[in-house]
Amino acid sequence: MSKLTIALDIMGGDHGPPVILSATLKAIRLHSDFNFILCGNEAVINPALEKLLPEQRARVSVEHCEDVVEMGDAPAYALRNKKKSSMRRIVELVESKSASACVSAGNTGALLAMAYYLLKTIPGIDRPALVSAMPTASQHRVFLLDLGANVNCTSEALFQYGVMGSVLAQEVCGIEKPRVALLNVGEEDIKGNAQVKIADQLFRQADALTYIGYVEGDDIFTDYADVVVTDGFTGNIALKSTEGLAKLVISEVKRQSQLNLLTRAMARIALPLLKSIYNRVNPDQYNGASLLGLRGIVIKSHGNASADAFYYAIYQAMQEARMGIPEKIKSKIETVLLEQI
Amino acid sequence: MSKLTIALDIMGGDHGPPVILSATLKAIRLHSDFNFILCGNEAVINPALEKLLPEQRARVSVEHCEDVVEMGDAPAYALRNKKKSSMRRIVELVESKSASACVSAGNTGALLAMAYYLLKTIPGIDRPALVSAMPTASQHRVFLLDLGANVNCTSEALFQYGVMGSVLAQEVCGIEKPRVALLNVGEEDIKGNAQVKIADQLFRQADALTYIGYVEGDDIFTDYADVVVTDGFTGNIALKSTEGLAKLVISEVKRQSQLNLLTRAMARIALPLLKSIYNRVNPDQYNGASLLGLRGIVIKSHGNASADAFYYAIYQAMQEARMGIPEKIKSKIETVLLEQI
Repeated sequence: MSKLTIALDIMGGDHGPPVILSATLKAIRLHSDFNFILCGNEAVINPALEKLLPEQRARVSVEHCEDVVEMGDAPAYALRNKKKSSMRRIVELVESKSASACVSAGNTGALLAMAYYLLKTIPGIDRPALVSAMPTASQHRVFLLDLGANVNCTSEALFQYGVMGSVLAQEVCGIEKPRVALLNVGEEDIKGNAQVKIADQLFRQADALTYIGYVEGDDIFTDYADVVVTDGFTGNIALKSTEGLAKLVISEVKRQSQLNLLTRAMARIALPLLKSIYNRVNPDQYNGASLLGLRGIVIKSHGNASADAFYYAIYQAMQEARMGIPEKIKSKIETVLLEQI
Repeated sequence: MSKLTIALDIMGGDHGPPVILSATLKAIRLHSDFNFILCGNEAVINPALEKLLPEQRARVSVEHCEDVVEMGDAPAYALRNKKKSSMRRIVELVESKSASACVSAGNTGALLAMAYYLLKTIPGIDRPALVSAMPTASQHRVFLLDLGANVNCTSEALFQYGVMGSVLAQEVCGIEKPRVALLNVGEEDIKGNAQVKIADQLFRQADALTYIGYVEGDDIFTDYADVVVTDGFTGNIALKSTEGLAKLVISEVKRQSQLNLLTRAMARIALPLLKSIYNRVNPDQYNGASLLGLRGIVIKSHGNASADAFYYAIYQAMQEARMGIPEKIKSKIETVLLEQI
């Protein structure tokens, strides 16, 4: 079997190419079963590659791109005017099957627009969705989607998110029958808005999924479900507000630990414990949101990702490439649609 | 000035009348400037009142109610069939001006339905909204609304929530010009759904409010705004998911502290610090959500509130009664509507 190839946008991210390149070198060194295409300014990229061994360097090619998508570029503007950008190039490489997956830490809206425009959706999927893993009380992960790819969302789209999330949980986490739940404001049947109620009916008719009904916001973290489905507006706000609370916990640890000598001593003693807890509960920990539902694999890393976090996003791209996630979604949605006939 | 009166539903809540009565006795003892009407089963209530001093007992009257709204009752069912319930009675007492405010820890949907049906909204307000205070990094509080009174929500309703939240922040927290923000998935103008974009325009035209634009989910906790406005579906999920994350932090502290002797020792030493942090960041800490926009004050306590938490909800009812919140909202919405002419 020929090696799988990952295309990387070296220019994206708040911290610039050095952080992205550091993560990229790590991925090249650790994964000899993968090839890499690095897109961006070759004057920045080439010197970094001198640190690689010949065998490693042989698995890397560089595509020079003149342009960069800026964080403030509107998606439509980037789509029209940034045709020579590193971000566009990595998506083109996936489209032409020169790469199996691509990763960028750049402008989310622009990446979504380019990926949707160039790759198109899998038949049976109306719109792509952003998905990420969240921590749960039982050491498992739960996939939450959509995190903001679509702010307006039909019942059919919610149902399709359930199919896609189920495939991801099955393939990436090895869960035979992932439990799919619909995020709602209450467990009773009477609650919820119109889209959610109709989506609930669609899920109940799909035997190929393990649908467990509604969950409320606090159930995201209780290991009640493996996949939690919601519209992009609500999902984005659920993700961001829990990240906000995690940051508040950190700032409060700092503030309280500096109140007096006693609290300072307590905090110093408990520091390893506090760090370990933070690493477990921080929703930000699993960097890398997958854009699911397209005819190719696109991973969006956080803009402010550290080298470790960007490496995790590359690792996620490699995992999805190995599993062939888009083909698995295509097959699953066909099964589910045939059931409905 | 004659004493203000608070009506209390003694039968609501997951833990039953003992917890509610314990909080009620505390409020009676501490606040000699208030009268109280206790609604529920008199055979349960009267024995508890024997513990009061004569002066305290003189400020309390009991209204026997035969019926109880169950946690599982559908709102429409409760509205039609629970006319002799303690929950309905407290709202009737506010409607007839026999009480200035009422508090229940019972079924949220039923309380909303009864309050909306009996009290009606203030002129200029289409629908009531549930609001609660959330912690922020700067020791201030931020009011988040709507937390689930309306799952479908117009731009006008979002705007009205901003007016109501602004009044609450002004009166309860003494903030002269509360900063009102609209919850959205991004700070750029291009993002957001249609309701949010139109609401943004309405806010920009209102000189009587201090509108600061869009905020994202993580900004709720950063003291960027004093009032954060969103629809009831999103608001409920933001509240519940942050509560869920706070619970995950606790469970993770417990789990990690029991891993080995060292972590157990670290946790024991840091326990006061951890507790203090938890008390600060737990979104659940300020028990008691106000149902704003009605011609009377209705406070919904958490169903699983402890005696301390239910006492806080009573305290909140007393504060709003002293401030005359519904009249203040009426006056503010008139000012804002006049601006629009």
